[in-house]
Amino acid sequence: MTWHATVLTLFPEMFPGPLGLSLAGRALRDDVWRMEARQIREHGLGRHRQVDDTPAGGGAGMVLRPDVLDAAIEAANPGDRPLLVMTPRGTPLTQARVREWADGPGLVILCGRYEGMDQRVIEARNMQEVSLCDAVLSGGELAALTILDACIRLLPGVMGGIDSAVEESFSAGLLEYPQYTRPAEWNGREIPSVLLSGNHAEVARWRREQAEKVTESRRPDLWNAFLANRGQHS
Amino acid sequence: MTWHATVLTLFPEMFPGPLGLSLAGRALRDDVWRMEARQIREHGLGRHRQVDDTPAGGGAGMVLRPDVLDAAIEAANPGDRPLLVMTPRGTPLTQARVREWADGPGLVILCGRYEGMDQRVIEARNMQEVSLCDAVLSGGELAALTILDACIRLLPGVMGGIDSAVEESFSAGLLEYPQYTRPAEWNGREIPSVLLSGNHAEVARWRREQAEKVTESRRPDLWNAFLANRGQHS
Repeated sequence: MTWHATVLTLFPEMFPGPLGLSLAGRALRDDVWRMEARQIREHGLGRHRQVDDTPAGGGAGMVLRPDVLDAAIEAANPGDRPLLVMTPRGTPLTQARVREWADGPGLVILCGRYEGMDQRVIEARNMQEVSLCDAVLSGGELAALTILDACIRLLPGVMGGIDSAVEESFSAGLLEYPQYTRPAEWNGREIPSVLLSGNHAEVARWRREQAEKVTESRRPDLWNAFLANRGQHS
Repeated sequence: MTWHATVLTLFPEMFPGPLGLSLAGRALRDDVWRMEARQIREHGLGRHRQVDDTPAGGGAGMVLRPDVLDAAIEAANPGDRPLLVMTPRGTPLTQARVREWADGPGLVILCGRYEGMDQRVIEARNMQEVSLCDAVLSGGELAALTILDACIRLLPGVMGGIDSAVEESFSAGLLEYPQYTRPAEWNGREIPSVLLSGNHAEVARWRREQAEKVTESRRPDLWNAFLANRGQHS
């Protein structure tokens, strides 16, 4: 069955955008997945199609109204697809969640703009609040595109025979080891000799050490989780 | 001076994409920032413009060649702009880094595809390896678009008078408090009464409590950093 993505946004013209090209674009044309981007403003109120109002309790910016968002969600017919809302308040995106979503029927993603959206509709619809990263974006659209890209590459047939070392590495809880290719010497810099030794066990050991080293130095969070996990299994 | 973004990619047609619309698009037309997306393949080798080769030491996938990438970087004339490479091996993106980049002359961003790129060019060019999130993407393009969006919204004049509570909240090391707007009662759900009380001190206290609560439950990493920071200052 075709994996089905629906995005609710004030900028539907941003979709599929980059996902209409490259691997995701080919898969879109091959009906591996399909998407629609729905304009929240179609459910706006009155002659001006108002979608937002001032924050209760005061403050700058505008907040998307619960009644408008609820009508937009209802019209999107989410069925049993998970309902996500992209917001810096959310729990961080992980590859494990991406894998679950890719294994399911699709996603409905609500993109915020302005200061945020009324919390009541998030609760009433039992939406999953997801944060892409700790940078503040102008809206949820790029976060939605990124999540869809991560899901689509996991759909059957999309990556073809490409076996992803990055993914294996993430699954093991480590960052990937460094990669090298031809030429053997470039600009006075050589490929580490172990990689040219032909000794597969040595290569595997070296890569494992490198993966551990980079994880420890760059991602203490992953490294501590890795150590805790290893402790449990030994 | 116009903030200058250069992206090196195998898919230049993905740019400016979503950044050509909305606030970023208007700022692009107003010359607040400018960008070019440069095709790495123009620096490929031989009749087939080869950009990659098999990984030294074996393994699946293809690795981008150091000589090709170096030529692409040289042609982009980075000057004193920071040189980023989007990779899951990188250090995580933070709003503090985004702010630094937005305050500078621009960025040169190299987007990976395939299994990765030769580590020697990353070292020779002293590139900053940046990770957007812990999900595996099909390439660095969406990560680059997202970083640019985060930078562009901070450029002078782009957000206009919009005062971002999200940003203030992030700067304080906490997630944002929940937002509410009209109607006061929706679907049997009411706006928390304190927000309608008109008591500014009470509203501020409630919001602070909510921000702390959501940060503690969803982001133990931020919460611990917040507590440690508060301890230092008290």
